Order: sequence, then structure tokens, then C-alpha cells
Amino acid sequence: MHNQNLQLTADGRLKHFLTIEGLSAEILTEILDTAESFESMPKGVKKYPLLQGKTVVNLFFENSTRTRSTFELAATRLSAEVLNMDIARSSTSKGESLLDTINNLEAMNVDMFVVRHDQSGAAHFIAQHTSPHISIINAGDGQHAHPTQAMLDMFTIRQHHRDFSRLKVAIVGDVLHSRVARSQIQALNMLGVKEIRVIAPKTLLPAQIESLGVKIYLDMAEGLNDIDIIMMLRLQKERMNSAFLASESEYYKCFGLTEERLRLAKKNALVMHPGPINRGLEIASAVADGKQSLILQQVHNGIAVRMAIMSMIIQPEQA
Amino acid sequence: MHNQNLQLTADGRLKHFLTIEGLSAEILTEILDTAESFESMPKGVKKYPLLQGKTVVNLFFENSTRTRSTFELAATRLSAEVLNMDIARSSTSKGESLLDTINNLEAMNVDMFVVRHDQSGAAHFIAQHTSPHISIINAGDGQHAHPTQAMLDMFTIRQHHRDFSRLKVAIVGDVLHSRVARSQIQALNMLGVKEIRVIAPKTLLPAQIESLGVKIYLDMAEGLNDIDIIMMLRLQKERMNSAFLASESEYYKCFGLTEERLRLAKKNALVMHPGPINRGLEIASAVADGKQSLILQQVHNGIAVRMAIMSMIIQPEQA
Amino acid sequence: MHNQNLQLTADGRLKHFLTIEGLSAEILTEILDTAESFESMPKGVKKYPLLQGKTVVNLFFENSTRTRSTFELAATRLSAEVLNMDIARSSTSKGESLLDTINNLEAMNVDMFVVRHDQSGAAHFIAQHTSPHISIINAGDGQHAHPTQAMLDMFTIRQHHRDFSRLKVAIVGDVLHSRVARSQIQALNMLGVKEIRVIAPKTLLPAQIESLGVKIYLDMAEGLNDIDIIMMLRLQKERMNSAFLASESEYYKCFGLTEERLRLAKKNALVMHPGPINRGLEIASAVADGKQSLILQQVHNGIAVRMAIMSMIIQPEQA
Repeated sequence: MHNQNLQLTADGRLKHFLTIEGLSAEILTEILDTAESFESMPKGVKKYPLLQGKTVVNLFFENSTRTRSTFELAATRLSAEVLNMDIARSSTSKGESLLDTINNLEAMNVDMFVVRHDQSGAAHFIAQHTSPHISIINAGDGQHAHPTQAMLDMFTIRQHHRDFSRLKVAIVGDVLHSRVARSQIQALNMLGVKEIRVIAPKTLLPAQIESLGVKIYLDMAEGLNDIDIIMMLRLQKERMNSAFLASESEYYKCFGLTEERLRLAKKNALVMHPGPINRGLEIASAVADGKQSLILQQVHNGIAVRMAIMSMIIQPEQA
Repeated sequence: MHNQNLQLTADGRLKHFLTIEGLSAEILTEILDTAESFESMPKGVKKYPLLQGKTVVNLFFENSTRTRSTFELAATRLSAEVLNMDIARSSTSKGESLLDTINNLEAMNVDMFVVRHDQSGAAHFIAQHTSPHISIINAGDGQHAHPTQAMLDMFTIRQHHRDFSRLKVAIVGDVLHSRVARSQIQALNMLGVKEIRVIAPKTLLPAQIESLGVKIYLDMAEGLNDIDIIMMLRLQKERMNSAFLASESEYYKCFGLTEERLRLAKKNALVMHPGPINRGLEIASAVADGKQSLILQQVHNGIAVRMAIMSMIIQPEQA
Repeated sequence: MHNQNLQLTADGRLKHFLTIEGLSAEILTEILDTAESFESMPKGVKKYPLLQGKTVVNLFFENSTRTRSTFELAATRLSAEVLNMDIARSSTSKGESLLDTINNLEAMNVDMFVVRHDQSGAAHFIAQHTSPHISIINAGDGQHAHPTQAMLDMFTIRQHHRDFSRLKVAIVGDVLHSRVARSQIQALNMLGVKEIRVIAPKTLLPAQIESLGVKIYLDMAEGLNDIDIIMMLRLQKERMNSAFLASESEYYKCFGLTEERLRLAKKNALVMHPGPINRGLEIASAVADGKQSLILQQVHNGIAVRMAIMSMIIQPEQA
């Protein structure tokens, strides 16, 4: 489809990384394998020359210290030059259009844009309008996709379960507003997990979510039964006391992941969260900091996975 | 004169780059030639060791993502360390004077300041008060000068017209408030263009502008006639509906560069703009994105020209 | 004691640098000697490979351009990668706790945190909660300590007076709110100065300050008599016209360091200030810019001293 073509070169290699949609299991697995090779290097080796002489622009229209930092570290460890652009404070405030901003940056001879934007489709739009030698990574666009987060989640899962086909995974929380959930569902499906469940209150479920290949549960006890991996979503507090949600305590009572609830899943079920976590809102501290939690491992893996994606999309330029 | 002495070493080499005023055609040409040598390097070569071990401070009292980015890229590609100082958020807010800020930075063993300030003369003031081993580049001071912008404009013109002496150039728009226009006029004159015209409404013309060696036109049709290069200026929207200007649509009707108007200039006349552009205010989108537009090429050339200036002013230190 | 253990490895080497309290004269002297070795390198040598492959995070919860810049330059000149984290704009604004922020950064495989925080004890808290391979430097915590400032002050003093045991030092101004004063007093005592005096209005003296081993003076003339080193403190203007202070002019009249007052100290007494200075409030311009002032030398020495501390605390990792 459209996205697939845009993301791939004529010979099927990764050119941009905008969405999981349309990518093959082979490409997803290549990302995971490449990330693994970075992770398994001898301790002390932190820097690789793969992006030497390349300039990566962190183009953040939306603030995110964590995501920007991991991209900056990933690029630096691949020996790239990094230019951080905080666009809230830039020419867009002088009334310049997104396309003009991009065209100007492109004219500065850069090689890769890492884009975060609060509007769905921004990364695609940029990929459609930049010259062929520039690669785009989507670092989160509106409520659409956050594919590098999904891939680091897959990488983290694979560190514990080599065979995706045996896994039952539950995604819990505000699926409606979550770009992370969309990308996770696509990746889990493509990598062939046995079952994906979505557990959420009705008001936080997108219409026709079943069409993505998931089962809906409105109840944690039912939904967590027999589950191997629990992927919690962050709840935006600003949605509380709105049409979506009754109250914080009400939400926690029904959908918060407590130690007690965690026991409803499979023994040793793993707990994930894209962060930053809301302790006592969607997850209990005892669970977030507990033995089954992979939350900090996810952050850690973010570097290797982003290095993998960066090194893969930059390859075609050098040929 | 004063500026000339301040900018040059005893043996006539460039020491600071504060203004075009007082610089010889030889030095301007040396900047263009040096920039050309950076531009003509084989693709893939991006980094030069010329500023290795040097520390460049981007000292921006006024925000400008585009200009700061090109200076950061230029310094990085010359292998300098770059320290970005966003002064709006710094000690000046604790009541420290400009001179104290400068003295403190100087004490940190840095080699070059790239200064943008909203007050005319700030870069000169700093150059007068720093120790001999430090070089200053003016990245725009108040309504006074923006000499690196003028030099990248000259470089862009020379890529298309090797012989300046045959060119008729028109500068269009808010000359009154433009530091760019002042620097452009000085550079064009020193490089020996045949004729410089300024086209603007009366309210946007500085007093005694003719003394700079330009001809005044209050009408686009007359002013553009027989012109080779049209240099548009950015219009500050905040000046609209003031004593200076009637309205946006009125301005565009009289001084906006439309496709129709562009045909009043010489065939294949080139269009330039320092950016960021106001589409539909001072320039039509069809012109900005059209074949005769050099706008993005200007941005691109900004890197090589700034590299050239940085490498020239740092030379005397090493001797 | 507690702090001592936390800062030192089992074999007594520096592991974190959180406070002067509990550090031996040997370690303080090692810092000064190491800084001296960086200062005495041949001109032109600016970069050392000691932190190659290490990632230093500048974690500033409180803004400070000067301190952040010197840490950034120090880390860069030791060949470290530097990640600047402006936490005011980060996830803490999404409600994340300090510990979660730290744990997340730690998961990114970084080696050192340089922490500035407006709450006393923040750096200690972080040191207590990070993994063993991470080192913490306190770049100022609340009203508690600013130990790198104290060490660069000691270094600056030693450049002029090799023997601390002969020196009489006066610390002047807002001791009550000063993290700098606390660290200075501890360092001066440990290095064995002859006498430390504190000169301040009663309202700006902490309770039981004498227990730190200082003599109190409420009068400049008495306090400055026979003094070798005058260490001025910055006065927070926001404390003026409050319960603490009558007015700016009243304060300057009683405690401002004028040329006249300076003559009350020993001939050639040296004047120091951690900056940024308030000219005409706590210090006269003629004194700040005069021959006896070491203020800019302090800033200059900040780089070498911070390089020394960084290189010392990173050593244990490599063993």
C-alpha cells in the first residue's frame, strides 16, 4: 500500500520508519536482530562509525525529553552529528509552514529527521516532501503511530520469549488516544502472537478496534486470564473528569494494575509500560517496581533499537 | 575607519566579522572563494579539521533557529566544539550585564563567539571588549547588520553570474527595519554591481538611504524593469496596521512579488529571500517555489559561507 | 559518616562528589593537584581522552547557564558525550517523580549525572538510588552545598597562596541562604586555614553558624581587619525589602565591598565572588574589575577543577 511503498526502497529495504503498518515480519525481525547485535557488544564499546559524517536532526514539535534523549544518544553512539531543533521556539512561531521548515533544514545538507509532532500523519507528510537522500523516523505523530516504541517493546518481549507465536498479550488502558497501542498491535500481529486482547473502559476504545485483529475486554479479571504479557498504556490525566472518565480513583479501582490483579494473569506474566508512568493511577508502585516489570528494560532497549533502525535506513544512501 | 580596524589584524587579515562596511573587495572575494572550496569537495566529505580543539559559542540573545542551526552545523563540520547559549534563559535574567556575561564566557577559554542580539552594535561592543585571541561573528545585530547573510547572498548570486559588474539588483520591501538590506547594499557595492535599486513604500525607507549608493523606487513596475536579481526582504507582520503600513492585502497588492510582477524584471531574473518567507504577504508561493527562486539554495549556501568565514578568522590564532 | 561513605569507594577513592563534608585533606589536595595538571598543559591541548565512551548527563532542575556551560565544556574536553537535560521542560511536568526520572536516565546507559536542584539533598538522594556504576556530581542543591564551586575557589586561592595555614579568610554577605558559603567553610577548614570569619547582618546568619568553626562579625571594618582573602556572596535581590533586609542602598552602605572598605583588609587582599555579581549591591564595580579581584580567574578555573573531579570519580569504573 501507500505507506509500504513510501517506507521501502525499490529493492525492499527500509528507507523511512514511519509506521509498522505495511512492514513485513522479515523487516521487523531484521530490526530486532540488528538491535541485538548492538546490545551484545562487549561492555565499554559504545560507539560505532556507521553514521560517521551524517547529520541527524531531532525535529521535536512536541516536547519529550525521554524520547529525544534516547534518539540523541542512539545517533551519537553511531557517530552522527545531532542537531536538536525545538520547534516550539523556532520559525514556525514566525508563521512559517511545516513544509518551509523542512525544506530549509533539508537545504542544510542533513541526512535524517527524527520527527515528533502532535498531528497524525506529520512524519508521512514530511517523508513525502523531502528529497530522496533524506530518511525520516517517526518519533510519534498525534494519535497515529509511535513505531520505534513498538519495536523496543517487541525487542524487550523477545529477550524473554523467543517464540512470539505462543504469546497471549493484553494491552490495557486508553487505547483510544494512544499512538503506542496502534503500533504495538500492528507489530504483535505481524510477528505472529497467538492472541492480542485490548482491555479498557468502553469510552476509551476506538470504533472498529476489532478490525485490527484484537479481542475486546471491558473487565480486567477476564481480560488478564491466561495472559503472558501485559502492556499498560499511560493515562492522560487531563482526560479525567471528562466525558471519557469518571475519576482517578474510579479508574484505578477498575483498570489499575495492582499486585492482586497481576496474579490474575499467567504466573510470571511480564508487565510493560511506555512511560512516564502514573503511579497509583494506571499502575501500582509495587507492580511498576516489581520483579515482573520490564519498564526500565524497555527504556534501556530504546537505545539499541533506535540505533538499529537508524543504521538500517541510512544504509541505502551509502550504496 | 573604526570598524575596519576592529575587524582586521595588523597585516590586514580578517579577525572578526562584524559588518561588510570597511572590508575590501579582496576579502569579500576570498570569503566567496573559500566557501566555494568547501562546496566543491567530493560528496561524503563533510568534516574538516580546521577548527579542531577550538570552542565556538553560539551566543543568541535573540532567538533564531535557522541561523543558529547553520552556524552550529558550520562549526561542527569544521570540527569545533559548539556551546549553545540561549541567553534569554541565562544570567542576564539575574541582572548580569552584557559585558559580565562576555567576560565570564571568555574566562572559559573559548575561541569564537557567534552573536545575535536585538541591539545594533552589540557585536562591535563585544569585539571591543574581548581579549585578542577571541574572534566575533555578527549573526545579526538590531537593525544594523547581518553580514553573513549578505555574504551567502553574494555567494548564491556568483553561482549564477560570475561577473558582478554586469548586474542590476533590486532590494524590495522593509528596508527601514532590515539589517539584511544594509549588509546586502554594502556587499553589492563593494563587489561592483552595475546598479542597486531599493523598492519600498516611503514609510519603509530610511532617511538618506541614497547616500549608500542606491536608487529609490516607490513603484514595483518601474523598479523591476531590466533587473537581474530581486532580493526580497521579510516583512515583520507586527508592523502591519501601524503607522508604517496600511494592511497586509494593500501591501501585497503594491509590493508583493507575484508571477505577473516577476515578468516585469529581466527574463530569468533570479529571486532571493533571507527567510523565513511570508507567503502571500511579500511573495507569492508560485514565485517562492518557482524556477527562478534561489531561496533554498541560499539556505544551503549558508553553511559553506559560514564555514569559510569561521576558518578565515580563526587562522591568525594558529600562527 | 553517612556522606563520607556514600562519596567514597571501599578503598577510599572518590566515587561521587556531593559535599565537601567528610572528605579528607588528601582528597581535596588530589583534586587541586589534578586540576593543576590540566591547567599546566601546553597551550593548544584542550582535549583529553579520559572520559572517551562515557556519557555525562547535565541534569539541571534549576537553570544556570554559567555552571552548566562549564560542566559541558569540562566533560567535552575530557572527550565525554554530553546530554543536556532541561528538566523544567521534561517529564517531571508530566507528573513523574525524581526517582523515576533518574531510573529512566540510568536505563539509558549513562555514566555520570551532574545535578543541580533547588532542594537540599537532591544529589545525595540520587546517589543513594542509582546503580553502583553511576557517579553523581552535585552542581548545587538548595541551600545545602555547592562543592565544585568551593573547590574552584580553593584552587584559585592556592594559585596565589601555596600555604593555606597562613591565611585569614572572610566570607561576606548572605550566608543564611548560601550553599556556596557552607561548602567554602568546610573546604577552608579541611585545608587548614588559620581563621575563617563570616561577616553579615544578623538576619542573614544561620543559627549556630559558629559550630562550623567560624568567627562572626556584624561589622565590615572589624571583620576585614588583617584579612588575606575576601569571599563575597551573591545577594538574592528577591530577599530585599523583606524581613531579611531593609533596602539595597542600606545593604550596600553597610556590607558592600567598596574600594575604601577593601583597604581595611590586608594590603593586596584578594577578592572573590561566585558570580553572577550584583554591581553596586554587594560589590563596587571598581573592586570587581580591580587588580585584587580574582572573579574571572575563578570562572576560568572552574573548567580545570570540574575536569579534575570528573576524571577522578570516573576512574573506579575502569578498574
